[in-house]
Amino acid sequence: MTRVAVLGATGAVGQRFIQLLSDHPTFEIAALTASADSAGSPYREAAKWRVDTPIPEAVADVEVVETTPEAVPDDVDLIFSSLPSSVAERVESDFCEAGYVVSSNSSNERGADDVPLVIPEINPDHLDLIEVQRDNRGWDGALVKNPNCSTITMVPTLATLDAFGLERVHVSTLQAVSGAGYSGVTSMEILDNVIPYIGGEEEKMETESRKLLGEFDGSQVQWHDVEVSASCNRVATLDGHLENVWAELSDDPTVAEIYAAFDDAATQDLHSAPDPLIETFDEPDRPQPRLDRFLGNGMAVAAGGVQETPAGVQYNTLAHNTLRGAAGASLLNGELLDRNGWL
Amino acid sequence: MTRVAVLGATGAVGQRFIQLLSDHPTFEIAALTASADSAGSPYREAAKWRVDTPIPEAVADVEVVETTPEAVPDDVDLIFSSLPSSVAERVESDFCEAGYVVSSNSSNERGADDVPLVIPEINPDHLDLIEVQRDNRGWDGALVKNPNCSTITMVPTLATLDAFGLERVHVSTLQAVSGAGYSGVTSMEILDNVIPYIGGEEEKMETESRKLLGEFDGSQVQWHDVEVSASCNRVATLDGHLENVWAELSDDPTVAEIYAAFDDAATQDLHSAPDPLIETFDEPDRPQPRLDRFLGNGMAVAAGGVQETPAGVQYNTLAHNTLRGAAGASLLNGELLDRNGWL
Amino acid sequence: MTRVAVLGATGAVGQRFIQLLSDHPTFEIAALTASADSAGSPYREAAKWRVDTPIPEAVADVEVVETTPEAVPDDVDLIFSSLPSSVAERVESDFCEAGYVVSSNSSNERGADDVPLVIPEINPDHLDLIEVQRDNRGWDGALVKNPNCSTITMVPTLATLDAFGLERVHVSTLQAVSGAGYSGVTSMEILDNVIPYIGGEEEKMETESRKLLGEFDGSQVQWHDVEVSASCNRVATLDGHLENVWAELSDDPTVAEIYAAFDDAATQDLHSAPDPLIETFDEPDRPQPRLDRFLGNGMAVAAGGVQETPAGVQYNTLAHNTLRGAAGASLLNGELLDRNGWL
Amino acid sequence: MTRVAVLGATGAVGQRFIQLLSDHPTFEIAALTASADSAGSPYREAAKWRVDTPIPEAVADVEVVETTPEAVPDDVDLIFSSLPSSVAERVESDFCEAGYVVSSNSSNERGADDVPLVIPEINPDHLDLIEVQRDNRGWDGALVKNPNCSTITMVPTLATLDAFGLERVHVSTLQAVSGAGYSGVTSMEILDNVIPYIGGEEEKMETESRKLLGEFDGSQVQWHDVEVSASCNRVATLDGHLENVWAELSDDPTVAEIYAAFDDAATQDLHSAPDPLIETFDEPDRPQPRLDRFLGNGMAVAAGGVQETPAGVQYNTLAHNTLRGAAGASLLNGELLDRNGWL
Repeated sequence: MTRVAVLGATGAVGQRFIQLLSDHPTFEIAALTASADSAGSPYREAAKWRVDTPIPEAVADVEVVETTPEAVPDDVDLIFSSLPSSVAERVESDFCEAGYVVSSNSSNERGADDVPLVIPEINPDHLDLIEVQRDNRGWDGALVKNPNCSTITMVPTLATLDAFGLERVHVSTLQAVSGAGYSGVTSMEILDNVIPYIGGEEEKMETESRKLLGEFDGSQVQWHDVEVSASCNRVATLDGHLENVWAELSDDPTVAEIYAAFDDAATQDLHSAPDPLIETFDEPDRPQPRLDRFLGNGMAVAAGGVQETPAGVQYNTLAHNTLRGAAGASLLNGELLDRNGWL
Repeated sequence: MTRVAVLGATGAVGQRFIQLLSDHPTFEIAALTASADSAGSPYREAAKWRVDTPIPEAVADVEVVETTPEAVPDDVDLIFSSLPSSVAERVESDFCEAGYVVSSNSSNERGADDVPLVIPEINPDHLDLIEVQRDNRGWDGALVKNPNCSTITMVPTLATLDAFGLERVHVSTLQAVSGAGYSGVTSMEILDNVIPYIGGEEEKMETESRKLLGEFDGSQVQWHDVEVSASCNRVATLDGHLENVWAELSDDPTVAEIYAAFDDAATQDLHSAPDPLIETFDEPDRPQPRLDRFLGNGMAVAAGGVQETPAGVQYNTLAHNTLRGAAGASLLNGELLDRNGWL
Repeated sequence: MTRVAVLGATGAVGQRFIQLLSDHPTFEIAALTASADSAGSPYREAAKWRVDTPIPEAVADVEVVETTPEAVPDDVDLIFSSLPSSVAERVESDFCEAGYVVSSNSSNERGADDVPLVIPEINPDHLDLIEVQRDNRGWDGALVKNPNCSTITMVPTLATLDAFGLERVHVSTLQAVSGAGYSGVTSMEILDNVIPYIGGEEEKMETESRKLLGEFDGSQVQWHDVEVSASCNRVATLDGHLENVWAELSDDPTVAEIYAAFDDAATQDLHSAPDPLIETFDEPDRPQPRLDRFLGNGMAVAAGGVQETPAGVQYNTLAHNTLRGAAGASLLNGELLDRNGWL
Repeated sequence: MTRVAVLGATGAVGQRFIQLLSDHPTFEIAALTASADSAGSPYREAAKWRVDTPIPEAVADVEVVETTPEAVPDDVDLIFSSLPSSVAERVESDFCEAGYVVSSNSSNERGADDVPLVIPEINPDHLDLIEVQRDNRGWDGALVKNPNCSTITMVPTLATLDAFGLERVHVSTLQAVSGAGYSGVTSMEILDNVIPYIGGEEEKMETESRKLLGEFDGSQVQWHDVEVSASCNRVATLDGHLENVWAELSDDPTVAEIYAAFDDAATQDLHSAPDPLIETFDEPDRPQPRLDRFLGNGMAVAAGGVQETPAGVQYNTLAHNTLRGAAGASLLNGELLDRNGWL
């Protein structure tokens, strides 16, 4: 078994990590960290458990430790991080320096030249950027990032469409409140309302997509030159980001060819990887967040409503933002790190 | 006083008509119609009143009549219609033939060559198409339409941007449930959910916008050649359609120039017309449906979040869908018909 | 395997039946019925599937038949019914007369003297009323009912408290929209709102509870003389009825004794029966619908917030209204009928 | 004009004070206070305005001051307070000592023997407790409280029923999220959910009701001996607390007599006092929060669904929790203080 630790295990994404790891076939939880206030408490008390499956018995009484390399056992093989990015900025490099491999969901350093930003089904080869990172930073460990939830939702379909010459993207998002963390959106903000702005989100979608779709030439990632323009909205859904996408293409595929390409999207033979990666719908009113967010155990991406436009196609896509879009994304990167021999 | 009748007075939009007309300075209600089932009942009973202001006393005991020209008094000057389009298709022409002027919110005939589709602040001159209509159809009356709620929300800003050379539009809508009528969206469809499809809505936005922005040359409307691509979503808001718009322009205005143009949009000196037409926001997270739908008594359009893009601008716009977007739109057309001497 | 049919298989409760039966160890679906309009269509088309797990492949292509005994194969052992009560009134007796055993969730005949109203963990012996029913009605088949969802939520705790001398109950319900069927509550009725009335619901809770808690003396059920006063509200939750209960008791148990009694509530050794029947919470803010409705696979009842009052106790209780409260309730009665040799 | 100051003017209730005072005929705003962080800023910046009417121009540029008697002009006649109770505990007595009359919505000291707890239509004579308070505390000023929002909702009907011998009350509340302040309830807590617990709320309803319904004998308030048992729930409504009430009475009035008594409830001739105080509904499904919270400009109480029970009556009641239940309640007490010569 691979021994793993979760940094920031008590937050909304942290709890999803615990849920996903509770019956994982090859990963076992060796340590859970939280802020200094909670250190020393059993997990049951430190985390106010809010997932709709019961707290796994195996972790309920685990004593939470501080978020420092010293507090984590030496025999831990892999670290998952869902820390607030301001904390992660400070802490993750300490772990990497101390020799740990960190698969992180935090937004810091996603754009750094020597930090792999990876979705296993899309750009697994970018993982080799770790060699460059170790050279640059003198680390024994490594830092690997997954993209933002709103980016992950869209990129599998964009990567597929790139076979038809992806040139430009307009995307509107209808994002669930869980993406802002447990207390990120108050009820008075969102009941009978929409908030047409999420700070920093548009830029994340625009830059992360280009890095993910880029080519790794052995020393650096050449970012894709697709032009992405995003408009991000928070709506009154709990989980599941829905996105309206327009993609301009140099080729002129039919709707049927696009559905076929989505259906044939590359998969990965990893425990948490869904097959198919993209679940498609013929009905124009699907995917819908509440009905379709759990496809592939919350790890699939759904797509539907594909229509031709003069310059390319428009369609809708959806993913579960705290599973495929956060905890599940880091977990999948951890499985890829494990299989590829980086642990 | 101008004597008016409301066709389909018991529905969701019909109730908004009653609310708006209840303290109108120059229009007085002379007749209320409904389906044959309700004819003969007092309005209080025929309509299950669901607006959050009390039912106006003056109409509560009015006897509802059938939706036929015979059932409406001869001295009625103006007819408002919010019938289901399948019924309107059949009935509105009967009224026009009988000599009535009909200001209709129903979607039938909006695209007809000889039917004016009007927003008073945008294309008041299109009203003169009535002459053509009367010639064609041999009517003493007239049929005037307002556009769909999702179109009305977007067109005031588009008309403003046309000064900078409007070429192409992408728009995502986040539409309120009231747009589908009182029973149009069930609670099980929309709680914790989004429906990424509204039948026929995308096409309405694409075609109606081009007609509204077109030029009337005295005999016909030359449709604007802007290319509009819409993606329509139903979200869990009660009232207020929010739209994310990308507009590609041939000129290259600054953000400040665009805000200035929005602030200076032409207004109309009519009782129900707001001034300004477009209320602008500097804050990136505005407009929001619940906070901003009542601007200008629900008749203004709100805009904010203007940003430059490589090809033009992106921004958000909002209007109250059953006020500015439906009953208020027909009412305003009625006021324009009155002022311009068509009654 | 026991061969079962589902009457009204396309509705909201019908779809829950299909979901629950799809991996049942001893029941297999032999027929699905719907209204005459749908008869002849594959289930996939007849039902607009709205459950958040995919439609089971095994039933997707089953041809739906009409809701008559003739249309159902002779070798069906057990019928589940979730018909609208007006239809059930007419149809269920036809099936019973034709020799079928019917486990019904429909509200008709629940109060009839010779119709068992059963919750397996509470009053399994009432099933023997079938003998009386067959004598009275000359049926080879049998008709067994489960109570209304709001009644089921409350009765397990009331039955437990009866050991302390249950005398009087006040109960307020906060009921989910799914209890009214897929289209029962419109979004405009319930967003930012509560409806403090559900037609007939209060009376059902008051009478059904007394029958369920009554004693079967071999020939009839002596209704319990507890006085129940209910106030029923519809709130904006999807699934899970929460109830605030005050129970007046002749004894004076401590809070600890009540929790112990809840924890020790009798269970049944049936496939779909949860163990424990009642899941208890010490936290005052639990149970909550979204977090706790899936306890025991949606078949457990949750209770918490127990406090002493001058005359007895107050507490909150919760159950999943379409699982434990509807489809699961009929299924469990079916399992009891099977085990007790009635099929 | 009476010159007033608002303590804690930037919070959710503070904003309602500003809204209500903006067109008040006899009160004018002389000072707005907030925490030290905001002092010195214009109100427009200090408050993130979230009410759905625009920020009143007259206050937008008022400079916010600290919450100390020194920072408030000497010629202020009346202070409104909506401070968090922990702050109010410390600060309100400073103002009273400095000679100011304080009408406070904060929960501290509501139960104190020498602090009047007042609803003008219910127990205006309790205001004379100020004499006792001044004797006890040596203040030139005075401290007057209004009850908690959930208590205010229920007490007008209970006071009316007391004519029939009020003995015991069971009440379940379905409370809006605004009652917890702008950030009090997160969206993840309340979407598709109910929270069956509000800390301290049940006790407030039980004790405050008895004090309000008590008799002031010139030196102290003899609390009413009604027994109140409350169960409090938070639901996904924005404004408007709905309550299911059972009242046990020594007399046996008919439903018609109760409706008549509600309709005839005593009113006050004060600017903000509604007439009637209680708006009644015959329809069993009213009042509803969204439809009825604005009755009497948000200052009326609504009641409906009256039914006889063996021991008395049950019914539903509703009030707007931040208008009649908070800012409006303090304002009305201020108007009573003014009229009765206490300023």
